[in-house]
Amino acid sequence: MNNPQLNAAGELIHLLSIEGLPKAMIHRILDTAESFLSVTDRDVKQVPLLRGKSVFNVFFENSTRTRTTFEIAAKRLSADVVNLNIGSSSTSKGESLIDTIDNLAAMSADMFVMRHSESGAPTFMAQHLNRTSGGTIHVINAGDGRHAHPTQALLDMYTIRHYKQDFTKLRVAIVGDILHSRVARSDIHALTTLGCPEVRAVGPSTLLPSHLDNMGVRVYHDLVAGIKDCDVIIMLRLQKERMTGALIPSAQEYFKHFGLTEEKLRHAKPDAIVMHPGPMNRGVEIDSAVADGPQSVILNQVTFGIAVRMAVMSILASSSKGV
Amino acid sequence: MNNPQLNAAGELIHLLSIEGLPKAMIHRILDTAESFLSVTDRDVKQVPLLRGKSVFNVFFENSTRTRTTFEIAAKRLSADVVNLNIGSSSTSKGESLIDTIDNLAAMSADMFVMRHSESGAPTFMAQHLNRTSGGTIHVINAGDGRHAHPTQALLDMYTIRHYKQDFTKLRVAIVGDILHSRVARSDIHALTTLGCPEVRAVGPSTLLPSHLDNMGVRVYHDLVAGIKDCDVIIMLRLQKERMTGALIPSAQEYFKHFGLTEEKLRHAKPDAIVMHPGPMNRGVEIDSAVADGPQSVILNQVTFGIAVRMAVMSILASSSKGV
Amino acid sequence: MNNPQLNAAGELIHLLSIEGLPKAMIHRILDTAESFLSVTDRDVKQVPLLRGKSVFNVFFENSTRTRTTFEIAAKRLSADVVNLNIGSSSTSKGESLIDTIDNLAAMSADMFVMRHSESGAPTFMAQHLNRTSGGTIHVINAGDGRHAHPTQALLDMYTIRHYKQDFTKLRVAIVGDILHSRVARSDIHALTTLGCPEVRAVGPSTLLPSHLDNMGVRVYHDLVAGIKDCDVIIMLRLQKERMTGALIPSAQEYFKHFGLTEEKLRHAKPDAIVMHPGPMNRGVEIDSAVADGPQSVILNQVTFGIAVRMAVMSILASSSKGV
Repeated sequence: MNNPQLNAAGELIHLLSIEGLPKAMIHRILDTAESFLSVTDRDVKQVPLLRGKSVFNVFFENSTRTRTTFEIAAKRLSADVVNLNIGSSSTSKGESLIDTIDNLAAMSADMFVMRHSESGAPTFMAQHLNRTSGGTIHVINAGDGRHAHPTQALLDMYTIRHYKQDFTKLRVAIVGDILHSRVARSDIHALTTLGCPEVRAVGPSTLLPSHLDNMGVRVYHDLVAGIKDCDVIIMLRLQKERMTGALIPSAQEYFKHFGLTEEKLRHAKPDAIVMHPGPMNRGVEIDSAVADGPQSVILNQVTFGIAVRMAVMSILASSSKGV
Repeated sequence: MNNPQLNAAGELIHLLSIEGLPKAMIHRILDTAESFLSVTDRDVKQVPLLRGKSVFNVFFENSTRTRTTFEIAAKRLSADVVNLNIGSSSTSKGESLIDTIDNLAAMSADMFVMRHSESGAPTFMAQHLNRTSGGTIHVINAGDGRHAHPTQALLDMYTIRHYKQDFTKLRVAIVGDILHSRVARSDIHALTTLGCPEVRAVGPSTLLPSHLDNMGVRVYHDLVAGIKDCDVIIMLRLQKERMTGALIPSAQEYFKHFGLTEEKLRHAKPDAIVMHPGPMNRGVEIDSAVADGPQSVILNQVTFGIAVRMAVMSILASSSKGV
Repeated sequence: MNNPQLNAAGELIHLLSIEGLPKAMIHRILDTAESFLSVTDRDVKQVPLLRGKSVFNVFFENSTRTRTTFEIAAKRLSADVVNLNIGSSSTSKGESLIDTIDNLAAMSADMFVMRHSESGAPTFMAQHLNRTSGGTIHVINAGDGRHAHPTQALLDMYTIRHYKQDFTKLRVAIVGDILHSRVARSDIHALTTLGCPEVRAVGPSTLLPSHLDNMGVRVYHDLVAGIKDCDVIIMLRLQKERMTGALIPSAQEYFKHFGLTEEKLRHAKPDAIVMHPGPMNRGVEIDSAVADGPQSVILNQVTFGIAVRMAVMSILASSSKGV
């Protein structure tokens, strides 16, 4: 199967997952985001790169937070933005995903930002749109099932590059509920592509997927051992809402073993940065003293995230036509 | 009762229903839509005709699909758009429809796009606004009860004129759940006004209203006989959500008798076009082979629909002041 | 505690409550609103004062009506507006109010319009943002618990000044469910600040708070006596949704005693104006003959309200940086 994200000229026409994204393309996205952060600020933050373009936020799964970041990014590029929460809409009248997207495409959509509970839905739609529109309508995956969340991974990479520059010398620990995290999966792929020599997964065995070895990830079941001498610690949200019954750990028990405190953080490198995709469960996976402490870059991630999403949208829109 | 849609100068000041819309006005709307389709495309699609105007989408009945088409049309005309889903709002606090509209009008609304479950609500509001604002605030009916859905009818007429040019030589079949369809009613009026000599209604007797004879419509209970030698076939959605109990046909049974298949379609003229207002129930009223086949113009209807809604809005906004 | 609404230079950096707002600042807001009403009309109503600014409507309590007025005001100032209904969002995932606001601030928000069911939440956030952003991110309280609703009070003051000019000669009656009204509390403070010599509270004892004496308000339990010789009558909505059990008066009984009819209105001054914050319960606190009568300025309040909100936003945005 060829890569639906890139056209024959190697241009990015969809952002579906980090897998299949060449290293040079990732750096191009991060460079573009950097240029937005340097020219935009609180006073001048709008650029006309997507003026007259229609961006549709099509969310089959509710996520105000993610939808908002894409809405802001699109508006700062001067696009028109239409928000669609599809749960309550036509699909409940028995319309298929393809029919919904075809209808929106017929309204002259230029870009879809899609969130869906089923893994692969955005890729499926990108392939369909490549057939019907020849690659002129773009899809950005804003999270599909447990599969991928590529803009989150890209903003994580932006953050790491911003603070640590050279990926080839880093030791990165991803801590917590990796099993239910589409962020973790995307981060691991991105870090590997960018040449990071050591990626660790830290968590209880019940929250770690089984295929981590195949991905070149070292597994730790002890937090202190797992973050020891690391440069970057990516804490994950404990996603209780995706767990069932007896497998849900108590917050207290979880914090005792896997909650990041100032004391435990001392085992990482002294200049290690602490990241979190948000929203945080304070006192569950992370102590407030760490979340608000000097090593936390969690709010910077949010700022970088807008610039990264602007970068992805502007690169997609600049692709010359044709699959 | 005089026609609240037109002012003394014969200008369109509201779009409430096809009834009362002169033939010349329908053609003017279609001509204006055509001009938008020729000057706008994927790259240049915004025109400044409604710059500085406030369009309120006031939906007392949820319809993401219809709301989106009006939102896009208004934004392409450079209007400001405010979306109001009123189900969860003030009316639930006991405020009357008139109070709600008066309040929004006092916020300097220029145009209301209104959807309501009760037939006549948009007309009622237009008459009220004519008294209070002298015809400077416009109402577009985006569907009221079983009464009318005039922009859908206008986009259907646009589609038919686009593919068939001359209405006076056409045989048109409307197939399916006409009883629950505001589209069918509006289409029949529009076709009659435009001089279409033969309009047919095809469906089971339980889904056909009783007054069709009075409207000059020929009734068929057999699909093949009903579409025989037709130029245009308008398939309707089986609206199970509006039916009760024992009257709901099974999808399988319905498809067997009234589902449009390639085989049955052969009984229409060879160059007949197949239309559907969406969302489709594939395998219920229409087979996928027809929906996606060469005679289907269903997605083109969606594209035309944006242009038709832009045309209606720009014509309303261009009316000189005064009832 | 110093006043978080004003910076060291005495500039308005947040609008949290009428308390602490100097008389001169209130008049400056009303003057600015007046200038918007004179230069803007149905044809030219957009000004570029907030171009490129991001206004976030953060509603932790649903209010389509209030949210819409702020959305319109921000768009007429050319701001980008993002609407967030937080009930269904991250806070339900256990994120704290501060984390939510910090995240939105990190997306380069310039202004928050906040509605919250808990009194003090906007003040709490303003104090937090003063610490973290140095007063460059502004908060407007759009209603917090039973505490305050300052823009409603300001538009009420605008209305009174517009029709009656000099506050120092007025007798004002506030009638009805003062206990559950954040408007009443804000209005009383504003009237006192502006030099109104006589403010009356009229209602059944079960709907009047106990501290009214301390606020210099005269209490009446009889409507006719309460509005006698008044210049301004502010009717309040009977907020049944905030009452419990046996304390809910019947609409009929309430109307008999405290509903404003034409007959009772005759006891006020002949040129008295009748106000209501909306939405009205016709036939409960106010008779339709009064609501739609010549002394009613209820819809004018709505129009003034857009201008007042524009004024507050533009004054906040014009503050020089620094707490």
